[in-house]
Amino acid sequence: MGFKQVLVVRTDLGMGKGKIASQVAHASIASYKEALKKNAEIVEKWEASGSEKVILKVKTKKELVDLVKLAKEKMIPCVLIVDAGKTQIKAGEPTCLGLGPWDEQEIDEITGELKLL
Amino acid sequence: MGFKQVLVVRTDLGMGKGKIASQVAHASIASYKEALKKNAEIVEKWEASGSEKVILKVKTKKELVDLVKLAKEKMIPCVLIVDAGKTQIKAGEPTCLGLGPWDEQEIDEITGELKLL
Repeated sequence: MGFKQVLVVRTDLGMGKGKIASQVAHASIASYKEALKKNAEIVEKWEASGSEKVILKVKTKKELVDLVKLAKEKMIPCVLIVDAGKTQIKAGEPTCLGLGPWDEQEIDEITGELKLL
Repeated sequence: MGFKQVLVVRTDLGMGKGKIASQVAHASIASYKEALKKNAEIVEKWEASGSEKVILKVKTKKELVDLVKLAKEKMIPCVLIVDAGKTQIKAGEPTCLGLGPWDEQEIDEITGELKLL
């Protein structure tokens, strides 16, 4: 059984690479903390095996919000990052979703169709 | 007194935006954990004030390695991410430096000249 963290970024907002990186970092830490609360053993195994992180993309807000619903149904720890609107993006806009670290098969069931950013 | 986390990315490696985001996420979590060990109170204050993250850039490996030395001299928690070489970059190549979360003035003293990615 393998573990990974997946970060899903919206491409329709036209974010620059620095903005993308900051949103992904927010999602990564926030989802890491959620996973720690839910199952610290999984997080430890993930860290021991190299802390794999995979960056995927979606084209719309709807795809990102639908993914959150699926993750919650499957009890996968996740955090949706909503921009504060100080730079580039309008306030309240979801930019990025963090999933896990969690069992990679369970994550693949809901993200397996998505492409790498 | 404000707090921030700074992630410094090398631009000379020609990393794509997904690769940059994954390296920044590695640096962000790793440096967060270092800071927690060193001063959990600072990390809590940083989280309570919005977990500010700033993404900066350098053009060379030397600049990144010099920054690590400066951070260590100033006792700023930091983690240099070295790529495992599975994708895009050769193994052992430093890609990104995470600094803090820490006192923003102390971080500015060593990164104040760097530009946003």
